[in-house]
Amino acid sequence: MDERVREHADVLVDWSARVEAGDDVVLSVGPDAHELAVAVAEKLGERGANLLSTYSSGEITRAYLRAHEGEFDENPAHELALVEHADVYLSLGGGRNTSATADVPGERRRAYNNARKDIRETRLGTRWVSTVHPTRSLAQQANMAYEEYQEFAYDAILRDWESLAEEMAQMKDLLDAGEEVRLVSNGTDLTMRIDDRTAVNSAASVAYDSHNLPSGEVFTAPYATEGEVTFDVPMTLRGESVRGVRLAFEDGAVVDYNAEQGADVIGEILETDDGARRLGELGIGMNRGIDRYTDNILFDEKMGDTIHLALGRAYDANLPDGESGNDSAVHVDLITDMSEDSRLEIDGEVVQRNGRFQWE
Amino acid sequence: MDERVREHADVLVDWSARVEAGDDVVLSVGPDAHELAVAVAEKLGERGANLLSTYSSGEITRAYLRAHEGEFDENPAHELALVEHADVYLSLGGGRNTSATADVPGERRRAYNNARKDIRETRLGTRWVSTVHPTRSLAQQANMAYEEYQEFAYDAILRDWESLAEEMAQMKDLLDAGEEVRLVSNGTDLTMRIDDRTAVNSAASVAYDSHNLPSGEVFTAPYATEGEVTFDVPMTLRGESVRGVRLAFEDGAVVDYNAEQGADVIGEILETDDGARRLGELGIGMNRGIDRYTDNILFDEKMGDTIHLALGRAYDANLPDGESGNDSAVHVDLITDMSEDSRLEIDGEVVQRNGRFQWE
Repeated sequence: MDERVREHADVLVDWSARVEAGDDVVLSVGPDAHELAVAVAEKLGERGANLLSTYSSGEITRAYLRAHEGEFDENPAHELALVEHADVYLSLGGGRNTSATADVPGERRRAYNNARKDIRETRLGTRWVSTVHPTRSLAQQANMAYEEYQEFAYDAILRDWESLAEEMAQMKDLLDAGEEVRLVSNGTDLTMRIDDRTAVNSAASVAYDSHNLPSGEVFTAPYATEGEVTFDVPMTLRGESVRGVRLAFEDGAVVDYNAEQGADVIGEILETDDGARRLGELGIGMNRGIDRYTDNILFDEKMGDTIHLALGRAYDANLPDGESGNDSAVHVDLITDMSEDSRLEIDGEVVQRNGRFQWE
Repeated sequence: MDERVREHADVLVDWSARVEAGDDVVLSVGPDAHELAVAVAEKLGERGANLLSTYSSGEITRAYLRAHEGEFDENPAHELALVEHADVYLSLGGGRNTSATADVPGERRRAYNNARKDIRETRLGTRWVSTVHPTRSLAQQANMAYEEYQEFAYDAILRDWESLAEEMAQMKDLLDAGEEVRLVSNGTDLTMRIDDRTAVNSAASVAYDSHNLPSGEVFTAPYATEGEVTFDVPMTLRGESVRGVRLAFEDGAVVDYNAEQGADVIGEILETDDGARRLGELGIGMNRGIDRYTDNILFDEKMGDTIHLALGRAYDANLPDGESGNDSAVHVDLITDMSEDSRLEIDGEVVQRNGRFQWE
């Protein structure tokens, strides 16, 4: 076995999920994530945790959903009972075709997801972590050769997380103390309020309220957004290529938009509900192990020297206790490069210029 | 997809497990059984059942067990809760290496199994069915080419089960009415009592108390065995080749044994406990879709024109209510060919001669 697979398992089990003896662990395995699952199982055995593996296959989901007439039972008891009794939920993504469910009607998928809300929320109450095993289909999605993609993915995943968490803590402190953020770049001059909001130091560990591996971003929930922003990082949204998106904000809401490509998808997202026109997240990418875009949001939004803004739902972790932030059925991240001709200001102080933070 | 995979799924879901709308189904998927799992998922969607897939990999089990220090938690709550809430449990065997757990110490495996008794018994309380997807590793175990093995397996699985169940009912009636069975063949002249015992018509369906697909045997729990028997069908037991086993019985218990090959394994089995020297099962193979031995007990023991006897534990289904039959930690099936120079008698009446039943 490639030694990096074992190192990935070590980071996932010890740093990310903090697994201990006696933990009841659900290991969700994608069809091509078998090798990582074997390495994780070894690690769980060492720790004395209890292992149950589930199988997460897009082809199985597709076959099931297409054959089903569409009225789904609410929160099937066996699956709900499983997650209710789980301490840890580890998801190892990695299939053979990232488009495996492409021909499942959206309505069928939504009905299925809506019927499983309690299962989903219960799962989110465990020490859950999502990661991916670098597979050939993910390499293809990233326009990379297989070995090239493995190097890319392990560079992102096998960081010195403790040291990165310390660096990110500086950004969190600045955001927690700040009142207003300003982003300036080509086609961007945007201000937003962050008073009373708490930033999350997303250091790829449940100990930091962070549930993705890789992670490496600091994010908060902005409001009262004003100005214009251009997102120059291309991505696929709802199966369509989107590039060069521009949004204009007044009083916190989008009042105008256009795009070099995929403007119709952006329009569709903005029309979802009222919250979809407002921001739910400002995220600052700080994982310099990620050095290029791969059209996979798990990696792209954490890339060093990028910033992302999400249209839609805000996370509770950023809000004062009992306060609800921006609400929406969507949360769509859009990314902009901050490595050139750019600056990030907090209360008028330049915190990052052309990709360099003030402490660098 | 090969149409036979879909037909296999149809038999499994409708004939074997009798799945209905609203059933909570656990689908246990082997690493190479993916294609059958997709076909089963489609069928479960059609039926309106609720699907959760688990992943059953020998390599994961090996990694976990070898790394574990050996003291296992009793019946982990998440897995127990899952089976407690399951109506149906479908196991789709099919890995990439039938020896995947060969280097797991026996003691570790036993400790793991002992700690999971409630989980196992709860699972046996569901409508459970075990089947296999014909994989390359199973073909290799059977000394067959892949396509040759597929034909073999589907001949065994895709029977007219309703019609076979009717034929097997005749054998069940004869055994239920009978008091003594005699087997005569080369190296075999054995009598055993079957009074008060109830035969099971194992027709590959939970509706017949039958949990294997393929099945196709009628079995009961004999006692007071006397005489000699030779098992001429070769098999692998505990990793060793066993061939030409001869057992001599007096007063229901083995008093002498030898074998052309693997006598030490037979000796080890007989010394397990008192019950291991007595018979727990007499089974009559009636699936003529199985026309050769493949060193896989799921198929071999159901082969038409064979009889198998198991040393060890008897099944409750064969016994009068409240009565306990032969008890043992083992249940080891041994098989003999009845197609030539052989006869099966019940109370002195020849029921099968040289592989022909009296109604044929």
